[in-house]
Amino acid sequence: MRATVLYGAGDVRVENVPDAVVSEPTDAVVRITRACICGSDLWPYRTLEHSEAGRVMGHEAIGVVDAVGADVGTLKVGDLVVMPFAFSDGTCEFCHEGLQTSCIHGGFFGTNEVDGAQAEAVRAPQADGTLVVLPVEKDDALMPSLLTLSDVMGTGHHAAVAAKVGPGKTVAVVGDGAVGLCGVIAAKRLGAEQIIIMGRHPDRIALAREFGATHVISERGTEAVERVRELTDGFGAHSVLECVGLEQSELTAIEIARPGGAVGRVGVPQDETIPASQPAFYNNISVSGGPAPVRAYIEELLPDVLEGRIEPGRVFDRIIGLEDVPDGYRAMNDREAIKVMIEF
Amino acid sequence: MRATVLYGAGDVRVENVPDAVVSEPTDAVVRITRACICGSDLWPYRTLEHSEAGRVMGHEAIGVVDAVGADVGTLKVGDLVVMPFAFSDGTCEFCHEGLQTSCIHGGFFGTNEVDGAQAEAVRAPQADGTLVVLPVEKDDALMPSLLTLSDVMGTGHHAAVAAKVGPGKTVAVVGDGAVGLCGVIAAKRLGAEQIIIMGRHPDRIALAREFGATHVISERGTEAVERVRELTDGFGAHSVLECVGLEQSELTAIEIARPGGAVGRVGVPQDETIPASQPAFYNNISVSGGPAPVRAYIEELLPDVLEGRIEPGRVFDRIIGLEDVPDGYRAMNDREAIKVMIEF
Repeated sequence: MRATVLYGAGDVRVENVPDAVVSEPTDAVVRITRACICGSDLWPYRTLEHSEAGRVMGHEAIGVVDAVGADVGTLKVGDLVVMPFAFSDGTCEFCHEGLQTSCIHGGFFGTNEVDGAQAEAVRAPQADGTLVVLPVEKDDALMPSLLTLSDVMGTGHHAAVAAKVGPGKTVAVVGDGAVGLCGVIAAKRLGAEQIIIMGRHPDRIALAREFGATHVISERGTEAVERVRELTDGFGAHSVLECVGLEQSELTAIEIARPGGAVGRVGVPQDETIPASQPAFYNNISVSGGPAPVRAYIEELLPDVLEGRIEPGRVFDRIIGLEDVPDGYRAMNDREAIKVMIEF
Repeated sequence: MRATVLYGAGDVRVENVPDAVVSEPTDAVVRITRACICGSDLWPYRTLEHSEAGRVMGHEAIGVVDAVGADVGTLKVGDLVVMPFAFSDGTCEFCHEGLQTSCIHGGFFGTNEVDGAQAEAVRAPQADGTLVVLPVEKDDALMPSLLTLSDVMGTGHHAAVAAKVGPGKTVAVVGDGAVGLCGVIAAKRLGAEQIIIMGRHPDRIALAREFGATHVISERGTEAVERVRELTDGFGAHSVLECVGLEQSELTAIEIARPGGAVGRVGVPQDETIPASQPAFYNNISVSGGPAPVRAYIEELLPDVLEGRIEPGRVFDRIIGLEDVPDGYRAMNDREAIKVMIEF
C-alpha cells in the first residue's frame, strides 16, 4: 500500500510499504477515506534525525473498517469510523476517568511503535476502545468537520476545558493555527463572553472572527501582554488557551492570565521547563493540559457537528491526494495553508 | 516599640523602631500577643542583600486591636484578632472571588512596603477586610492552632485545594516542614484515603503520622519517585502538595503525580522556571497554587480549630520571647525547631 514516510527533517516521501494487517486479535484495519496533516507533524518534519527505517506519519483519519481481529466485538467490516490520534482500550482506569491518552494499553498513531494514517490503510490497535462509528455516509458534506474530531477540535476543546472556560469568561487564545481556531470554537461553545485571538495571519484571523473571536491582537511579547490588559480592565484573561508550545508563547500565556486564572496547554512543549514560575505562583495561575483525550470528547462534540452548530472543518483550506502529501507538509510549514486534508 | 529587623542574610536583630500608628483611615494598630517565624522567612534570612534600612519581619500574628482609623467599621479597640499574612480590602473583585492575595488594594506584611508582626505591634492596612475577630480569650489553650490560621494551616489547605484532594484520593506531600504537616491535616480533613509524607526528620515524620499520614518516604530524587509508584499501583498520586519550592522538589512533585493528577504548589518557588514541562504535559498534570488566600479559608477552618477537630498548633515545638527571635531564626534554619512561636 502507499503511505507517507518521514525519513528525517524535510525528507517526507509517499511510497510503497507493507499492507496494514490485523496482527493482534484486538486490532482492526481501517481503509482511509480522509486524513490530514497536523501542526504537530511539523515538529518532526523540521527536526527529526535521519533514519533508514523512517516513520509512517499521520494520526488523524476517517475510514472504513476493512478487517477486524477475533476479539473485536463492537465493529464490523464496512463501518465508517473516526480514529482519535491515540488508541486506547476503553476499559482501564484512565479510560474510565476519560483520560484515554494515558490508557495503560494505549499509545499514539504515527510513532515508531505504531504506523500512521497518512496512508491507504492503518492498523488500529485496541479497536473496540479506539474507533467510533459515524452515523453518516462516507461522502457526507460534514466529513471535514467530522475529521477534526480525530484531533484538532478535541484538542481545542481540551485547551478550553483545561483553561476552565465557562459562561461569561474572558478567554485568550495564543496561536492562530488550526488548534487555536478550534479553541475559539470551543470557547464560544462553552459560553465565553470575550474571546481574544492572538495571531497575525489575515486568513486565520478572519476565520477566527467567524468562529466567534471578539478581539484580535497581532502584537507579540510585552506589547501583546499590554494589549490584553487593556481589553480586560488591566487584569488579564480568566482562561488562556496555549496552542503553540514554544517558550515565548507559554510565557505570554502566563503573563496574560488574570490572577486566579488558568492556562490550558495543548501546544506540544518544545522546552524542558515551563517559564514564569514565579509570576504563575504569585498570581495563583494554574497551568494544565496535555494531549487531549479526544476519544472522550467525541461523544460530546459529535452532536454539535452533526447538527451544524459548530463547523471546525472550515480549518481545512487545502485538499490534496495522498501523492501530494510532501507538498502539503511544505505548504503548512510555509504557512501557505492552515490545515491540509487528504482525500482518497 | 521593639521589633525584629532583618538587615541582610543572617543579620536579624530585635531593636527599637518607631511605634506602629494609624496612618490611613482604613488602618488598625494591633498589639501582638502571639506571632511566629515562617519557613518563608528563612529565604530572606539566607539570601537578603544587606541594606541599612532593614526590613521589619513577620506575617503571622494574633493580637488585640489597639487603635482604629476613622473608616474602620467592623473592629473596635480590645478585639482579639487573627491577621492573615496578606492584607486585603474585602471588597474588590478578587476578594469577592476568594483570592485575597491578589486584592487590588492589598499587599503583604513584613515586606519593604508594610512592616511585619514579629514586633510589639503592627499597622494593619485595610483592617476591615483583613482582620478576623476571634471568639475566644487571648490566653485560650487553642491559641497556637488559631495562630496557624494566619498562614501555615491555610497554606497547607490551599495546597490541598490546588492539588484537588478529595475523598478516596491518594495524596503525596513533598516537604515535612510546618506547611507540609498542615498539608497532611488538610488532606485528611478533605477525605484523602492514602497520605504519603515525603521527609526525613524523625520528629516531623512522627507528627505527620499523628496528623494522618499513612506512609512515609524518606528517600529523595528517583528513589523517592520509585517508592511512590510502588505505593500507588505504579501510577503515582492523584494529588501532590509541593511545600518546599526548590527545583528538585518541584521535579519530584511532577514525577510522582499520576496521569491526570494535580500538583498544588505552596512552597515559594526559588527558580524562574517550572521543571519537567514535558512530563507534566504528556501526563496531563496540572500545576497550580501560589500564596494562599488564607483570609478566605479562616471561616472554613476556624470551626474545626475551635471544636478541636484539627490541631495544627502542634507544629509549634518551641516557644520564645521577642528578644530571642534571632535565635529562633537560627533554630529553624538549623532544623532544630519545626516552627517557633513568639509569646508576648
